Amino acid sequence: MEFRSILLGFSLYLVYFVDIVISRHTSSFVRSEWPSTDIPLDSEVFAVPKGYNAPEQVHITQGDYDGKAVVISWVTTSEPGKSEVLYSKEEHKYDRTAQGRYTNYTFYDYTSGYLHHCLVDDLEYDTKYYYKIGTGDSAREFWFQTPPAVDPDAPYAFGIIGDLGQTYNSLSTLQHYMHSGAQSVLFVGDLSYSDRYEHNDGIRWDTWGRFIERSAAYQPWIWTAGNHEIEYRPELGEVATFKPYLHRVTTPYLASKSSSPMWYAVRRASAHIIVLSSYSPFVKYTPQWWWLKGELQQVDRERTPWLIVLMHAPLYNSNEAHYMEGESMRAAFESWFVQYKVDIVFAGHVHAYERSYRISNINYNVTSGNRYPVPDKCAPVYVTVGDGGNQEGLALRFSDPQPDYSAFREASYGHSTLELKNRTHALYHWNRNDDGKQVPTDFVVFHNQYWASNTRRRRLKKNHHSQRRDVFVASL
Amino acid sequence: MEFRSILLGFSLYLVYFVDIVISRHTSSFVRSEWPSTDIPLDSEVFAVPKGYNAPEQVHITQGDYDGKAVVISWVTTSEPGKSEVLYSKEEHKYDRTAQGRYTNYTFYDYTSGYLHHCLVDDLEYDTKYYYKIGTGDSAREFWFQTPPAVDPDAPYAFGIIGDLGQTYNSLSTLQHYMHSGAQSVLFVGDLSYSDRYEHNDGIRWDTWGRFIERSAAYQPWIWTAGNHEIEYRPELGEVATFKPYLHRVTTPYLASKSSSPMWYAVRRASAHIIVLSSYSPFVKYTPQWWWLKGELQQVDRERTPWLIVLMHAPLYNSNEAHYMEGESMRAAFESWFVQYKVDIVFAGHVHAYERSYRISNINYNVTSGNRYPVPDKCAPVYVTVGDGGNQEGLALRFSDPQPDYSAFREASYGHSTLELKNRTHALYHWNRNDDGKQVPTDFVVFHNQYWASNTRRRRLKKNHHSQRRDVFVASL
Repeated sequence: MEFRSILLGFSLYLVYFVDIVISRHTSSFVRSEWPSTDIPLDSEVFAVPKGYNAPEQVHITQGDYDGKAVVISWVTTSEPGKSEVLYSKEEHKYDRTAQGRYTNYTFYDYTSGYLHHCLVDDLEYDTKYYYKIGTGDSAREFWFQTPPAVDPDAPYAFGIIGDLGQTYNSLSTLQHYMHSGAQSVLFVGDLSYSDRYEHNDGIRWDTWGRFIERSAAYQPWIWTAGNHEIEYRPELGEVATFKPYLHRVTTPYLASKSSSPMWYAVRRASAHIIVLSSYSPFVKYTPQWWWLKGELQQVDRERTPWLIVLMHAPLYNSNEAHYMEGESMRAAFESWFVQYKVDIVFAGHVHAYERSYRISNINYNVTSGNRYPVPDKCAPVYVTVGDGGNQEGLALRFSDPQPDYSAFREASYGHSTLELKNRTHALYHWNRNDDGKQVPTDFVVFHNQYWASNTRRRRLKKNHHSQRRDVFVASL
Repeated sequence: MEFRSILLGFSLYLVYFVDIVISRHTSSFVRSEWPSTDIPLDSEVFAVPKGYNAPEQVHITQGDYDGKAVVISWVTTSEPGKSEVLYSKEEHKYDRTAQGRYTNYTFYDYTSGYLHHCLVDDLEYDTKYYYKIGTGDSAREFWFQTPPAVDPDAPYAFGIIGDLGQTYNSLSTLQHYMHSGAQSVLFVGDLSYSDRYEHNDGIRWDTWGRFIERSAAYQPWIWTAGNHEIEYRPELGEVATFKPYLHRVTTPYLASKSSSPMWYAVRRASAHIIVLSSYSPFVKYTPQWWWLKGELQQVDRERTPWLIVLMHAPLYNSNEAHYMEGESMRAAFESWFVQYKVDIVFAGHVHAYERSYRISNINYNVTSGNRYPVPDKCAPVYVTVGDGGNQEGLALRFSDPQPDYSAFREASYGHSTLELKNRTHALYHWNRNDDGKQVPTDFVVFHNQYWASNTRRRRLKKNHHSQRRDVFVASL
């Protein structure tokens, strides 16, 4: 009897282990279609809109905690002009206005245009809005669709893009993304790569703003800062970190009670999205640490089953590029990600694609404990999507052999999509840029970390219904 | 023959191992003489100096890179008054003046006095200076001694104090320190603990300023920030970190080309002292990371053999309190400390005393490598001196058994002294506060990490002499 149990246990262990071993995948495919150089300044891709002082570099982001507001941002170059947005639910019939503000900055010898940011709030869910900025012949019109109300079964499709830059590979990624049908971009840091130019030439921030407008004017891009946004150049007298980034991009950080635009959270449809800053203080006692501790405590998986974390430097990465650069943040936050059953952690930074198994290394400590990450059902899946296509090229060297924690990896350009279907299931794709085509290469069905366990779901549904009843009674 | 070699190797291994095992020491002694409560506000210890608007909370710190300047700081409470320092080499005959500036701040419902900071530079080495601040009957006089010129054999005695606070235990620590004969304090963070009071009551910053004046007005205290200096209180609308600290304390950060007063370096006698900030960004690509990389490269062990690093949260600590809180910084910096042969890393944070062996954990990585820290001759000794005596009390629970990396540990209040004798040797003591007496409890002779190896020293001395000749020729 006892022997049989041992044998059974061993067999199960073997099956489990073999399952891990045989399913790991390092794709030998490397697809780098175009050279890693930026598109020339005079390309049509960066065309300046016609008309005197016409608004350019238009982009929107979520403007509140729950998705009933957007911030519309744009740049004027000749004079400030109005920071006003006209908008309505009917095309060309603008019946509402919102007033914003503008700012500008200098970076060494570069002076920015007038950077406008305008909050448009009190919107209805699941509604198409048209908006107009600029005046006279220079006015420009766009539209966006608000998300469905926050609800555990609200379907929603996110795209995930990182380390984009402005090469022809970047353009390919962006065009493929725009055909994906996804409704909002989770951007995991490293935007324009203008810091690769002499004196961090801000002109390449402007071209990048015009480059992404084709998508970002029509749907929110949720911003995460990367190392290329730090722009610390003491030899130029520029020591304030993230200066161009913080002027050009807004985040709704106050809505999630954050004290800094660098880290914040938004809820959108069935997702609770937490954005972290790899290059701000994050160890115990720092503001980001306190804020994350509080934010994780108030995540309500009954309302937003999908808990997604964005950051720039990955906590797990088996590429030689940036190997273990996420260790400091892993030491600070990994145990929380496991405790709160985060579904997926998306990162960029490494210019390749990689997806991990559900693993954790939280038992490691300097005197005892595990040596390596171990399978952990409560752990997130870690996905690195630093393959947007910037001028630095691909990170071609993965460690060999592929470590146990790594499930799939390939050094090609691309982007990911995450389709939340309901509270239990989501479809995830990584889409390689391939001969100008989008090729779904890595595909996973994600089971929600909170709802997909039967036992838990039954128990929670019961609580859920009794809670619902309470709400109903209270609202009578 | 071969068998003998193996036997010899094994014996040496055994000796080495046994040496480690038998020399580890956890002191069962716990000395906590007074209760862990702050000294009452009306105590003589915090007495306000007599006279209208008399300067109070006088403290000095090094004002340049090499020790030929000090910054003198003080507070006036009724009106700003002059930010002027009179000084001279003769007592009462002030023939020189220096002009400073003042600032002030509010923290929720507290308004600070006028915080003066005045740089006094172009001083001579190894010289006693007298100084006078304030006017008329309220004027006050002090003195300080400049260090010897930067030289590899210049002897110098530092005290190391951490987590001081303002209890009777703190007073005991401070009084013992003042009898040690040390010439300058390396303060490893957590100063006043005023953040333990309702609304982070700034009055306890003022009492602390008056408390330390008895030492800090006469010799430089080299400042490191700790977690109690963060003072992040979003619920009070106070979200700018380190606000009182940065107003009250100055550091000569510009002299070491740092972009922030939170991290910097000074050279003093035969020591190169690097101050790091545990709660500022420090991972790769951040300003502190770039700065440390550069500063370590330009450390000249020929001129300053003793390379000492200060931080608040220890990288190695086997107390249950704050266990592994330094992991994030260890992941970022430990390999540099080994590469550059740092002599000693002093930290605070844990309210007990601990000293490590020379160990490193730099071969650990998530896919292979060592599991635990291993003996490493190139590694620093890590010393935790968070036992200044603040109101939070002692950290009594050490992990059991004592890990291999830990050499000596005891949960009592106290301070350390480091006497640099010459380029090769230094005497180090940890002094327990014991029945009102200072008791040297842990004693180590440190051999310099750069000069104490004979081979290296011979080779380097040769280079050193040829360099000296070059300098001589160049200065003809």
